[in-house]
Amino acid sequence: MTNYQKLEARFRQISALEDLRSIAGWDEAVMMPAGGGPSRGRSLSELGTIIQNLSTEPQLKDWLEGAEGETNQFNDWQKANLREMRRIYLEQTAIPVELNQKLILARMTCEQKWRQLRAKNDWAGFLPHLQELLNLTREMYQGLSKVFGLPVYDTALNMYSRGLNEKIVETLFTRLRSELPGLIESVLAKQKHEHVIFPLGEFPMHAQKTLGLELMQAVGFSMDHGRLDESHHPFCGGTPRDVRITTRYNQNEFVSSLMGVLHETGHALYEQHLPEAWLGQPVGSSAGMSIHESQSLFMEMQVCRSREFMEFAFPYIERFMGPHMDNKEALTPDNLHKLVTRAKRGLIRVDADEVTYPAHVILRFEIERDLLLDKWPLKELPTVWNEKMKGLLGLSTLGNDKNGCMQDVHWPSGAFGYFPAYTFGAVIAAQLFKALESQIPDIRQKIGKGDLASVRQWLNDQIWSQGSLYSTQELVEKATGPLSADPFLNHLNKRYLNAH
Amino acid sequence: MTNYQKLEARFRQISALEDLRSIAGWDEAVMMPAGGGPSRGRSLSELGTIIQNLSTEPQLKDWLEGAEGETNQFNDWQKANLREMRRIYLEQTAIPVELNQKLILARMTCEQKWRQLRAKNDWAGFLPHLQELLNLTREMYQGLSKVFGLPVYDTALNMYSRGLNEKIVETLFTRLRSELPGLIESVLAKQKHEHVIFPLGEFPMHAQKTLGLELMQAVGFSMDHGRLDESHHPFCGGTPRDVRITTRYNQNEFVSSLMGVLHETGHALYEQHLPEAWLGQPVGSSAGMSIHESQSLFMEMQVCRSREFMEFAFPYIERFMGPHMDNKEALTPDNLHKLVTRAKRGLIRVDADEVTYPAHVILRFEIERDLLLDKWPLKELPTVWNEKMKGLLGLSTLGNDKNGCMQDVHWPSGAFGYFPAYTFGAVIAAQLFKALESQIPDIRQKIGKGDLASVRQWLNDQIWSQGSLYSTQELVEKATGPLSADPFLNHLNKRYLNAH
Repeated sequence: MTNYQKLEARFRQISALEDLRSIAGWDEAVMMPAGGGPSRGRSLSELGTIIQNLSTEPQLKDWLEGAEGETNQFNDWQKANLREMRRIYLEQTAIPVELNQKLILARMTCEQKWRQLRAKNDWAGFLPHLQELLNLTREMYQGLSKVFGLPVYDTALNMYSRGLNEKIVETLFTRLRSELPGLIESVLAKQKHEHVIFPLGEFPMHAQKTLGLELMQAVGFSMDHGRLDESHHPFCGGTPRDVRITTRYNQNEFVSSLMGVLHETGHALYEQHLPEAWLGQPVGSSAGMSIHESQSLFMEMQVCRSREFMEFAFPYIERFMGPHMDNKEALTPDNLHKLVTRAKRGLIRVDADEVTYPAHVILRFEIERDLLLDKWPLKELPTVWNEKMKGLLGLSTLGNDKNGCMQDVHWPSGAFGYFPAYTFGAVIAAQLFKALESQIPDIRQKIGKGDLASVRQWLNDQIWSQGSLYSTQELVEKATGPLSADPFLNHLNKRYLNAH
Repeated sequence: MTNYQKLEARFRQISALEDLRSIAGWDEAVMMPAGGGPSRGRSLSELGTIIQNLSTEPQLKDWLEGAEGETNQFNDWQKANLREMRRIYLEQTAIPVELNQKLILARMTCEQKWRQLRAKNDWAGFLPHLQELLNLTREMYQGLSKVFGLPVYDTALNMYSRGLNEKIVETLFTRLRSELPGLIESVLAKQKHEHVIFPLGEFPMHAQKTLGLELMQAVGFSMDHGRLDESHHPFCGGTPRDVRITTRYNQNEFVSSLMGVLHETGHALYEQHLPEAWLGQPVGSSAGMSIHESQSLFMEMQVCRSREFMEFAFPYIERFMGPHMDNKEALTPDNLHKLVTRAKRGLIRVDADEVTYPAHVILRFEIERDLLLDKWPLKELPTVWNEKMKGLLGLSTLGNDKNGCMQDVHWPSGAFGYFPAYTFGAVIAAQLFKALESQIPDIRQKIGKGDLASVRQWLNDQIWSQGSLYSTQELVEKATGPLSADPFLNHLNKRYLNAH
């Protein structure tokens, strides 16, 4: 075996074990009874140690160095695979074992404390736990920063979206900061006079689930390679050949859950179509979280919240929700489309519409960057949050940390550097849709008929089949040209203000 | 660390990984979409290799030898734990790696072929696969036989019920062979004139599930440490702190599923009450399959199919099944008790009642013992099966191998030596109940009120809390005196013939 072949065998082994970890994680969130927690924790920690050892053994270094001498006959996939292997190995070994153990413990503790203390709006009690985790995370990023020769915050961004850096984010966000406030103002003013009918009724979970299953399959989800279940926080988990998406149901309101299912379906389609030949290898996995979010938001925002898709979805909604609706006049494609494009300033990111969502992300970006660079003490977080929230959306979170700086699980679980991926996802999704429409001019008519075959084919060619061959920007650029905020802003203007 | 402490750490590690394997196995049977199969297979094979390596590393031999010198301060649990560790290590290392790999492959192939070919009643097509597996299994047992200094079939019995041997089985089965045919005859003659009303109706799965959940909790199942789901073949899986039981539902008949749930609950209670302090160590696991079956049959046969339990269960059945029943006259405790004690000669073991069940086991015991000793060619199996079936139950399986020698998954999955555990379970259950009744004379009245606290306390003291401290017979003997067929035969006589 060549060195490269040894590496492939090792990463195949690691991937097979990661798959088990992923299924066990899904099980924990969806199936496990509470009393199974402690022993599950021990099992996952044992598996984690084994995976960690397999990823950091000294012989990997020899194989990586040896493989450098074998690249003259490599194709692009093999070259990219070796690049990814090296990156993973460096990431894994750059963090000292002791720091890593402290981080695992601190993440677990901080997330558990967050669950308890957020409910009690107890920032003071939560602060020391977040402080501890922030310190350790900063130390980790400082270490990685040296190994990869990148600034600290760029290292954090790279952890979730390969190739992203502060300058790119700042450029995009500067544009959004200047354009969005006016746009939000206009959208809200326009919608104020719109007549929307909110569907009233009790919508049984079983009927909502059937509706979700019908539409997720209609847009392309393969039930032979996945499932739909319920969990407290919706997510897309499992493995590429067995994708597990979840949602939650509210008996009084079915639109949020349905759109949530279609959002996760966007993630799932990406996973289900990753290149078969490279599954189990680093280059066969997705191209990072910005691209992943672009796929879920492409499906949710570009396709499923469009006026055309509502034409297609309407008979399904009528069939499964109609019998439970008290005000049947809410049941028109037009009214349903108004419902799924309703904008509102709010405190909670996960409840935000696509017009106000970037404000939530910009706020978090500015804060987490400062925190990683230790620009101001963590104890000021509630004050800073409140000020930025007032500036961006005109809302106060004073004394309401539960719905302010304590609302998200990301920081309490150590995910500093993740948030920009949401808005990059939205911007990339709009840019992809624009490119698709320029190549297939009648794509909206097709969507109106529920004919998404050409949408899937195009996404497959441009994104899904590419695994992590390219960095975030390379991938976008190859598909659509340089990354720009224009398509996203045009999309919002067109959808919400009928402007062209 | 002492050698013994090193062993404890290693077995704790193995157990944590076995727990994951168990949850992944449950997921495969209950949750996984079909398309997830191949990648799940790779994941489980990878995990299996890791567990195998952890269990057979040469340093374990050193630790085991070293630990022998440390036993002077051991308590009984530590001594038994070391004994179990040694047994497991010997079992794992006695089988040559190459043979083991062939066995894993042959089991998988044979079970898959069995699923396809049983449906087609194709014995000729199935024979070569079973032959291959039988040969390899015989070779394995021959190897183990030398290591443990036991006859070949005793080695097979020991694999599933520690301490059991052919002589003990033969003694018990000789008694049953002589007593049961007459008993079956009398029971069937008596029941011929009994008036039983079979409940008619369509019983929704959801209502059946609710009934099952209510009654399994009433007898003591902790939902904080377990779940109830559906699967094609009912089983009890998961881990001691997270026990997953399954059942299947038939819309036209609810009694089988309900009794199945209560049977699996018997298994589950044992697992949920294994000694907390020794979980993760060999001595903390159950005392083998005969004892395990005794716990499920204790719950199902001794407790739940009793006239007294039906008094307690009746209001539950009335509440959840009543609304779906066309002939409400079937709804009396008396009639329901007749239903759950109905006997019938049949071809299928899993459908058999407790009176005819031992005949199915005796047949399989006689055959598998011969097969492991190569007494006659495997190709004669259908003929031998048919002859024994005619002799034991007066039924022919000629040309009906699907419901004859191809009906069970055990041999196709390599489990030669398992079957006697079912009848030992039934016999032990009766003996345990007799002992319990002699110590708590009003136990039947308590059962009639659904007050099972003292049943559980007694089983916990005698069986559950003992882990695998003792062998099958030692455990029974400590709780109730020497193993005997009398309590079982008395139980059948009393329940089915009103004899005392």
